[in-house]
Amino acid sequence: MDQQLTIVKVGGKILESQETLLQFIEDFSALPGPKVLVHGGGRSATTMAARLGLETKMVEGRRITDKDMLEVVTMVYGGMVNKNVVAAMQARGINAFGVTGADFNLIKAHKRTGTTIDYGFVGDVDEVNVSSLVSLVKQGGVPVVAPLTHDGAGQLLNTNADTIASSLAAGFADVMDTRLVFCFEKPGVLINPDDDTSVMPFLNRELFNMYRNEGIISEGMVPKLENGFNSLASGVLEVVITNTDGLSVPGSGTTLGE
Amino acid sequence: MDQQLTIVKVGGKILESQETLLQFIEDFSALPGPKVLVHGGGRSATTMAARLGLETKMVEGRRITDKDMLEVVTMVYGGMVNKNVVAAMQARGINAFGVTGADFNLIKAHKRTGTTIDYGFVGDVDEVNVSSLVSLVKQGGVPVVAPLTHDGAGQLLNTNADTIASSLAAGFADVMDTRLVFCFEKPGVLINPDDDTSVMPFLNRELFNMYRNEGIISEGMVPKLENGFNSLASGVLEVVITNTDGLSVPGSGTTLGE
Repeated sequence: MDQQLTIVKVGGKILESQETLLQFIEDFSALPGPKVLVHGGGRSATTMAARLGLETKMVEGRRITDKDMLEVVTMVYGGMVNKNVVAAMQARGINAFGVTGADFNLIKAHKRTGTTIDYGFVGDVDEVNVSSLVSLVKQGGVPVVAPLTHDGAGQLLNTNADTIASSLAAGFADVMDTRLVFCFEKPGVLINPDDDTSVMPFLNRELFNMYRNEGIISEGMVPKLENGFNSLASGVLEVVITNTDGLSVPGSGTTLGE
Repeated sequence: MDQQLTIVKVGGKILESQETLLQFIEDFSALPGPKVLVHGGGRSATTMAARLGLETKMVEGRRITDKDMLEVVTMVYGGMVNKNVVAAMQARGINAFGVTGADFNLIKAHKRTGTTIDYGFVGDVDEVNVSSLVSLVKQGGVPVVAPLTHDGAGQLLNTNADTIASSLAAGFADVMDTRLVFCFEKPGVLINPDDDTSVMPFLNRELFNMYRNEGIISEGMVPKLENGFNSLASGVLEVVITNTDGLSVPGSGTTLGE
């Protein structure tokens, strides 16, 4: 365990504009040591679905993924977003390569069942196999991971990008010192969502539960933090929630701990 | 040069139906030794473009690729076709992973200029870097290559899949014994296009020029064969044109030679 790996999940508004995306890629590319990028792309998928006359239905922040919507997310996440990010990184001399959970059998999942809501082709992660990626990242390769998985029987599945990031972090933590950064448009977890200076510098399970019960932490931040705490429990050394500016500044954002 | 590499380009109607695609993947997966798959997907791109209200314009078999059409081919080739093929191979125990020319900086190209026709974001190949793939294929990894390249400055480009296949074959031929198979819906190069039993078993430049002058070889077959002869000139050991049935049968189809 000589080199520390940084896994960054980027999503939200950062992916939406070419300007914020390129700024992010510049800051990400400057991070020292081995690194992995996990991206989302939900808003682009919603736009493309609308152009194809498909309505996007979300339940508790999760996309209902019927056959047509699976085609859209496969095209948008695996093709459009992934390949443009790879090309932009290559332009900065980073040896990026795009993958989904199907490539190298990286993330095996099963179609979600047993819920009252039919999410369609949504996958819950069963297994992460980082073996093919480890030597590549140690040699300077940078995997760019799209939020898709497969069931091992030929079926692609749509899986939340935060979940992909924490699953991968747990997988890499077995073989490398690993830190996980959730990078989004806010500077961290905020006490007051309207005040960007109200970043909580530190959060543990106890504080998280307290803030959640008080309604201070809510909506999309809840599963993101759940994923973060699960990663710590799986041996990830550090989990940070920050924005692009905070990527390269130690101590920025919200650090999760025990 | 201990193991022989087989590069197969699949295109045409084989990709269009799930049945012929899965049959192809089964036969491809059974090929012994290291292998690489290059796929097309033009018909799927045309269908998706039409669903988005975009008209497909072809000049001499080449797609005019404006900004919107580039988005479509990036989604369809890099996402939809590529990831479904990867998942289908993984289901057969093949350690497939999808790439474009941008991933691992595999194929650098420049935007075609100086022609009377403006092809838009169409790339002519400048440079092939197989170094990242060589150790992966020697370890049993199977690259699945979508027909996209990049210019090294962040721009993706649309490049003909036959050209991708022969460029890659030339690149691999420097480091491995390499054979190239163009797999399409016909059993080989036909003397009579309406008679599938009229396969030419062998073709060299001299015969090719003769048949072309007589109009027996025409249209899409001409650039395919040009690519094939260029590959031979670059050190590729064998170039074969055949169909799925011929993939695993030695001596099937049309073999190109000096």
